[in-house]
Amino acid sequence: MDISRLRDLLEKVQKGQLEIDQALGHLRSLPYEDLGFARVDHHRALRQGFPEVIFCPGKTPEQVAEIAFRLSERSSMVLATRASQEVYEAVVKLCPQAEYRTMARAIVLEQGPLPPPSGRVLVVSAGTSDLPVAEEAAVCAEAMGRQVTRLYDVGVAGLHRLLDRQEALWAAQAIIVVAGMEGALASVVGGMVDKPVIAVPTSVGYGANFGGLSALLTMLNSCASGIGVVNIDNGFGAAALAHAILRVAENQ
Amino acid sequence: MDISRLRDLLEKVQKGQLEIDQALGHLRSLPYEDLGFARVDHHRALRQGFPEVIFCPGKTPEQVAEIAFRLSERSSMVLATRASQEVYEAVVKLCPQAEYRTMARAIVLEQGPLPPPSGRVLVVSAGTSDLPVAEEAAVCAEAMGRQVTRLYDVGVAGLHRLLDRQEALWAAQAIIVVAGMEGALASVVGGMVDKPVIAVPTSVGYGANFGGLSALLTMLNSCASGIGVVNIDNGFGAAALAHAILRVAENQ
Amino acid sequence: MDISRLRDLLEKVQKGQLEIDQALGHLRSLPYEDLGFARVDHHRALRQGFPEVIFCPGKTPEQVAEIAFRLSERSSMVLATRASQEVYEAVVKLCPQAEYRTMARAIVLEQGPLPPPSGRVLVVSAGTSDLPVAEEAAVCAEAMGRQVTRLYDVGVAGLHRLLDRQEALWAAQAIIVVAGMEGALASVVGGMVDKPVIAVPTSVGYGANFGGLSALLTMLNSCASGIGVVNIDNGFGAAALAHAILRVAENQ
Amino acid sequence: MDISRLRDLLEKVQKGQLEIDQALGHLRSLPYEDLGFARVDHHRALRQGFPEVIFCPGKTPEQVAEIAFRLSERSSMVLATRASQEVYEAVVKLCPQAEYRTMARAIVLEQGPLPPPSGRVLVVSAGTSDLPVAEEAAVCAEAMGRQVTRLYDVGVAGLHRLLDRQEALWAAQAIIVVAGMEGALASVVGGMVDKPVIAVPTSVGYGANFGGLSALLTMLNSCASGIGVVNIDNGFGAAALAHAILRVAENQ
Amino acid sequence: MDISRLRDLLEKVQKGQLEIDQALGHLRSLPYEDLGFARVDHHRALRQGFPEVIFCPGKTPEQVAEIAFRLSERSSMVLATRASQEVYEAVVKLCPQAEYRTMARAIVLEQGPLPPPSGRVLVVSAGTSDLPVAEEAAVCAEAMGRQVTRLYDVGVAGLHRLLDRQEALWAAQAIIVVAGMEGALASVVGGMVDKPVIAVPTSVGYGANFGGLSALLTMLNSCASGIGVVNIDNGFGAAALAHAILRVAENQ
Amino acid sequence: MDISRLRDLLEKVQKGQLEIDQALGHLRSLPYEDLGFARVDHHRALRQGFPEVIFCPGKTPEQVAEIAFRLSERSSMVLATRASQEVYEAVVKLCPQAEYRTMARAIVLEQGPLPPPSGRVLVVSAGTSDLPVAEEAAVCAEAMGRQVTRLYDVGVAGLHRLLDRQEALWAAQAIIVVAGMEGALASVVGGMVDKPVIAVPTSVGYGANFGGLSALLTMLNSCASGIGVVNIDNGFGAAALAHAILRVAENQ
Amino acid sequence: MDISRLRDLLEKVQKGQLEIDQALGHLRSLPYEDLGFARVDHHRALRQGFPEVIFCPGKTPEQVAEIAFRLSERSSMVLATRASQEVYEAVVKLCPQAEYRTMARAIVLEQGPLPPPSGRVLVVSAGTSDLPVAEEAAVCAEAMGRQVTRLYDVGVAGLHRLLDRQEALWAAQAIIVVAGMEGALASVVGGMVDKPVIAVPTSVGYGANFGGLSALLTMLNSCASGIGVVNIDNGFGAAALAHAILRVAENQ
Amino acid sequence: MDISRLRDLLEKVQKGQLEIDQALGHLRSLPYEDLGFARVDHHRALRQGFPEVIFCPGKTPEQVAEIAFRLSERSSMVLATRASQEVYEAVVKLCPQAEYRTMARAIVLEQGPLPPPSGRVLVVSAGTSDLPVAEEAAVCAEAMGRQVTRLYDVGVAGLHRLLDRQEALWAAQAIIVVAGMEGALASVVGGMVDKPVIAVPTSVGYGANFGGLSALLTMLNSCASGIGVVNIDNGFGAAALAHAILRVAENQ
Repeated sequence: MDISRLRDLLEKVQKGQLEIDQALGHLRSLPYEDLGFARVDHHRALRQGFPEVIFCPGKTPEQVAEIAFRLSERSSMVLATRASQEVYEAVVKLCPQAEYRTMARAIVLEQGPLPPPSGRVLVVSAGTSDLPVAEEAAVCAEAMGRQVTRLYDVGVAGLHRLLDRQEALWAAQAIIVVAGMEGALASVVGGMVDKPVIAVPTSVGYGANFGGLSALLTMLNSCASGIGVVNIDNGFGAAALAHAILRVAENQ
Repeated sequence: MDISRLRDLLEKVQKGQLEIDQALGHLRSLPYEDLGFARVDHHRALRQGFPEVIFCPGKTPEQVAEIAFRLSERSSMVLATRASQEVYEAVVKLCPQAEYRTMARAIVLEQGPLPPPSGRVLVVSAGTSDLPVAEEAAVCAEAMGRQVTRLYDVGVAGLHRLLDRQEALWAAQAIIVVAGMEGALASVVGGMVDKPVIAVPTSVGYGANFGGLSALLTMLNSCASGIGVVNIDNGFGAAALAHAILRVAENQ
Repeated sequence: MDISRLRDLLEKVQKGQLEIDQALGHLRSLPYEDLGFARVDHHRALRQGFPEVIFCPGKTPEQVAEIAFRLSERSSMVLATRASQEVYEAVVKLCPQAEYRTMARAIVLEQGPLPPPSGRVLVVSAGTSDLPVAEEAAVCAEAMGRQVTRLYDVGVAGLHRLLDRQEALWAAQAIIVVAGMEGALASVVGGMVDKPVIAVPTSVGYGANFGGLSALLTMLNSCASGIGVVNIDNGFGAAALAHAILRVAENQ
Repeated sequence: MDISRLRDLLEKVQKGQLEIDQALGHLRSLPYEDLGFARVDHHRALRQGFPEVIFCPGKTPEQVAEIAFRLSERSSMVLATRASQEVYEAVVKLCPQAEYRTMARAIVLEQGPLPPPSGRVLVVSAGTSDLPVAEEAAVCAEAMGRQVTRLYDVGVAGLHRLLDRQEALWAAQAIIVVAGMEGALASVVGGMVDKPVIAVPTSVGYGANFGGLSALLTMLNSCASGIGVVNIDNGFGAAALAHAILRVAENQ
Repeated sequence: MDISRLRDLLEKVQKGQLEIDQALGHLRSLPYEDLGFARVDHHRALRQGFPEVIFCPGKTPEQVAEIAFRLSERSSMVLATRASQEVYEAVVKLCPQAEYRTMARAIVLEQGPLPPPSGRVLVVSAGTSDLPVAEEAAVCAEAMGRQVTRLYDVGVAGLHRLLDRQEALWAAQAIIVVAGMEGALASVVGGMVDKPVIAVPTSVGYGANFGGLSALLTMLNSCASGIGVVNIDNGFGAAALAHAILRVAENQ
Repeated sequence: MDISRLRDLLEKVQKGQLEIDQALGHLRSLPYEDLGFARVDHHRALRQGFPEVIFCPGKTPEQVAEIAFRLSERSSMVLATRASQEVYEAVVKLCPQAEYRTMARAIVLEQGPLPPPSGRVLVVSAGTSDLPVAEEAAVCAEAMGRQVTRLYDVGVAGLHRLLDRQEALWAAQAIIVVAGMEGALASVVGGMVDKPVIAVPTSVGYGANFGGLSALLTMLNSCASGIGVVNIDNGFGAAALAHAILRVAENQ
Repeated sequence: MDISRLRDLLEKVQKGQLEIDQALGHLRSLPYEDLGFARVDHHRALRQGFPEVIFCPGKTPEQVAEIAFRLSERSSMVLATRASQEVYEAVVKLCPQAEYRTMARAIVLEQGPLPPPSGRVLVVSAGTSDLPVAEEAAVCAEAMGRQVTRLYDVGVAGLHRLLDRQEALWAAQAIIVVAGMEGALASVVGGMVDKPVIAVPTSVGYGANFGGLSALLTMLNSCASGIGVVNIDNGFGAAALAHAILRVAENQ
Repeated sequence: MDISRLRDLLEKVQKGQLEIDQALGHLRSLPYEDLGFARVDHHRALRQGFPEVIFCPGKTPEQVAEIAFRLSERSSMVLATRASQEVYEAVVKLCPQAEYRTMARAIVLEQGPLPPPSGRVLVVSAGTSDLPVAEEAAVCAEAMGRQVTRLYDVGVAGLHRLLDRQEALWAAQAIIVVAGMEGALASVVGGMVDKPVIAVPTSVGYGANFGGLSALLTMLNSCASGIGVVNIDNGFGAAALAHAILRVAENQ
């Protein structure tokens, strides 16, 4: 039930065409959250600040293509994450403008003139093996309209590489730190700046890495403050949190 | 080595009082990060946006009191977390203005006229047993100069309690969600708004709660986006992240 | 906002005292779930089939006593779980009719003529150490108005004890199986009958029991079917599930 | 030893053809549970309320086909779960009426006029990736003669989708909630109704989902009551528990 | 139902006092396992080769004392494990012959002339901290009538201590190895002899010992063969397994 | 250095051909354990009661074939476990008498007249999916010269199947119980007999089975006594322990 | 910024070509750790005592080849670990002198006359399945210029094999112990000598080995002292630690 | 059996007082490792480079005192770790020279003129809460005759504190890094120097620290090389490894 249907109902009460008890019955099962928007996709954009994102695993290429096509009819931006080359080929048949970002494993479809990017997000990664997750974060943040700077391969085994680039840390508004193995980079970055740091543990590593558990625990237990952790390998989640943080600055 | 000592060194080179090779030797061991500040406490406030906070466990009451006293000489605000009544009694002898926030287990010492609170932080908690952690978050955020609203006991077992108060969610700039047991509240809140949500799992629960692991995993795996997780029971960490997020809006 | 306030609003629309757009504004923030009930306690009883139960850990004796007293004013039955003797003594001062069930660590307060118990719940336990949890389940189910039969100390180390009492299994409508250590009893009972079996792992045991994890995993992986598992030591949760199951039979 | 053989034995005692001590010897090793049924398959149906179900993993297609064929000779309903397309092709050669439910990965074989479905089971799922498990639950419940309603893709990230369909929750007699990732849906549903809720954690998710552990712990620690948990991805187990619950209502 | 009651039933059939269908009804609920023994305690001794052992934790001193007294009326040997001094004092009031083995935390009560010990059990322990568990194993094995040799403090950090005593290993029929920390002793002993080795991990250790998990995993993964593992700290369980193994040699 | 070389050394001392200090030097590095055997393979048979067994994983087919061939030159029995069909084909080229036991995934090579099997081992398994592990245990025990009885598919979900076959349990000298999922069968068997029970958890199962952890914990925490646990899926280990137990009876 | 650029800067100050404040600005962002070396690769060799090692997983064969080629231009030794045959083929096209050590899965490229190996490293392994990790350790240590002795297949299941070779233990300066399954070898070796022991748990094993966790915990909890543990399967890490230890002896 | 007894035996063979077969019998059970030393305590010092250290937990104050007294009779240095004040008071009665190092919880007894300390060990700790473990490492290393420098409270949350003191890192021969919470300090130190780094995770922290597991995993997965990890909180173990490393430099 949307606003117009609710208006109809109230008008019928106003005109005496509907008894109060009948109206009560209708309202009792009123779809509460639907008042402010007409369709699911519009709703998500209003409520969460970004259209629905397609998480590809577990969906067939055809399903992803169809969802992408439908979203593209109503949204200037469509984003699909964890997409294989095969999925991209299905999507591009229906949506010829769709582009594939190989490293990020993401499909991005932009339509019409987009507003210039705003908000400064820095994506920092520890090693080259963390690149797919770092790129997922960067590409998603860009798709959300953010201006992204990349600072890769600055892990703590060679700390001078990070110390050399401190100005990049200070220039950012939100910092996404992507690190596998022991994940110490988040603590080091978090101890250097007063920016909100979004820590993304990756499953990169071996042995007692346990699929990213090591980096995850490191980041949760960080002795530095101002750090929020997202799920292992969840580059998209980090971008979404950075996006939400930057909206705070925009919506005062 | 601070700026003035570096200036001395350069002046000596300029005046020919120091050979280049000697200067190179000095610079080789230059305390890199010390250039911009004179003392530890000032440094932390500059770098992290808030003076050092005293984490009481593992320190004797006397140690906490002494640290608090020294910090109070240079800072208008001193904060000690996880403080017992016994610790407070030691502190208040040295710092008579110190107050004890029983529920939050925090000692707060405010001196001189403080700026009015700014930035709107909402602290949401699931159950009454989560209150100590929620209060730690709230009191710390207030000590950091934030305006805090509390919305307690709105766990998902009675969802209407949260739905009734949606306007509070929308009014906040950053939302701290404190929940133990299964920790589902973070996902529900995260799905309702586009604000950055800081999720704090608590160790409240029993059985397969495993000391907060259950809520922690729930929050990390949330299907909602825009959520950053801090350590179990880490109310202070949540406040520090909220503080950093709000600085983004202030420092554009 | 309750039904009467909603009725007022609709009447104002009917009478032309309120514009439709104004009414829309009010309804937009309508407390959705509050339509059908006036107060929290009534709500819980309507929605969940039983008044709110007081979970004592983390509350002071005085807090429990006050909550119990308030609930006793509106409900014919008050139940508090995990209550110590000290908590009981605080409660009984305010609520003289309150009784303490030592083994179950529960406080029960019954007022006025209660309907006769209905529905046949069987509580089966493996060993004497499981008794506190089994009794919590039994006492809670009785407080919910159920007729409870106890079949204790029939663990699989002496299987004949259970085989002797098969008729008790067949006579029940819902069976709660409480077992610690390896928790095999749930599988054995589940394989013998076609009744819904509610399995409660207990933290009884030592060594690699890991606080009940052993029994929990056993029950989740049971090769028998028709088994639902609740949290470790959660006798109350088992009773609540049995209660819900029996309501199915009553509310057809 | 079945009833007829037992009758023979007793008749021989009655007629004096067998001494009491000889009869005692026979009875001493009497297959106790076999008294009431002639063959294994009949036994299971009597004892558990549904014929034996074929769990396909670890069996060759030929083995599954042969077991299905044998069961089909004596039962009007045969069900095989976790069946691949290849297994189905082997089965359909021997049992031409067998149908394959792709999404549920189940083989269903129905023979002769079946009684109309009875009992109202609602299967609720959080996301599209949970569909295989949800469909396994739904198809199995249907095969057990239950009337199943599906309510899919109503995860807590968009809570209004569930709130819109509350009448479906209230209309059901037993509710199966299937959710991966953080599994919060079970708590939300459990907090809204007084029906028995059967929670099925799925292994859907990534990172710290740890193969379903996250959703499993969430559901076990739910702050809502009336929830029984089955094993990860165990759609069949949920259906079997729902089946047992509905039998309570039928067999009063 | 015992043998005599079964005989009565058969006699009534023989005499025509009971119809076959009535007898069938009685037999349908026949307590299967009860045929061969009259009382619980006798049963356990017959079935498991040793009277019931009292596991004290979770029982009050009075309960233990009463159980011990009742068992002492029918058995020449009573054994209670994990008994505190306080428990012993309660027991000795009712059973003056009861002795307390402090190190083993066990109460032993022997009555009348016992048969000489038979079977050679060797209890090997790694360190002095493992003594309580080792002594529990030794005392329990002695109470079961076994001849026990102790070989303590021969951990692998000083391997020569074990190598010096190899003849003790070869002289035993069953070897119980008790070790905490990394538990490597079981592998070393298992690699030296062809005797059945019963490995008991202990919770002795610190850090990543995780309450005995370390030693438990070591023992389960032993590269030596002929090793059976019991639960952490379960000295009694080791003795019971040794007892069962030695019965094989006695009951050929 | 073997006995004969040691004898030479002592004879040289006796004859004055070797100084005492020289002899001391030789003895200082004496291969202690080598005194009683000439070569590795002979040693293992003497020390462990069975020739070395080839564990195939991690070895190439050619390596396995070569080891098998060499062992076959000196031993009447060669056994290789976890062997694929491909490995067997490599072995059979060098050792034409080698046989492949498909279900057990084992290669067995028997030469010359073997002594008749002795000792009665019963292998009990819970479900058909446990067969590979059960067969590994059975085939290995047979290769060790044991008489093996198989009792398969008697899991606790249909307890009567086991109760019907109790005489088989009583007839055995050692019982190997193989069970996956919740592994409750070990407790049930352990509670019925006084034989040593060797429990083998299997990785069969799904969801919270966690690769056999569930069954492993169940068996370690068994409330029945006389149970020794081996590693997950370790059929060979169970056979080796049964073998060692039976040697106790043979070597008195 | 390297030494020469820093010298330029100081010379400009000396000559009055650069104001002190300008120089301060430059120095403020001085790449601190870069003072002592000109380029990244040189830096690592100076700081860590060995050129950067290529960890191949997660890199394409072409990427590895290019990195190897670039390193080969400036270093007399290039090492790539965890390299597949396919990676080697890509490397050897660009670097014809590169050799592939199959067992160690390592690519080694040595150029020009290398200094003779120094320092005595002993690599001890428990079983043949541990060879890949042991060889990785040995080959890496050799590439670092160390003299390596191999002592393989001396696991504790046949302790005499190790006891026979004690002189090898005493001859070494640093001992790397590689062991999977229960990993007890590290404790045994650690208890025999006073050398630093570097323990490498391997993921070799099955069942409750849990990917090397068993051996890892064993080694961490070792009752022997003087043992440092590296990550599971981390042969390179062990070599690097041995290398660092031997540098202590060289750089006094 | 020590060297002199072995010499006796050989002399008797030489003199014809002992038959070769008798000598063989004696030698067969020769205490292999005892050849080189006369008594246990001497043995440990010879084999491990330091006398036996008393680990106090699990021992009574009287036991510790007696062991300390006996060791003090034969050794110039006695060390007891994890000693409470109460234990110290028992020790000092028997050994008046014993000193108690409160922070390190260690008892140290030094007798006679000791050699001057040698070898440079640096103990680095992250936070003040890590001090007890750091001090245990420092005091133990000093008791082993090492020269120890302390560098405390230099955690990565304030990285400049460590960067300021780099010369201390370079001056050491072996570095012990003690850190709790996320334990990132070990990676940072390991990346800065080419010294062997001994990483000690501490159980300091809260929430998802899980008793030191977080720091342990961090250190094992370190992206820096040259790091060996010891058990959680095991300051003594770190000192023992440093001691062994420095012996390499001394015993070339």
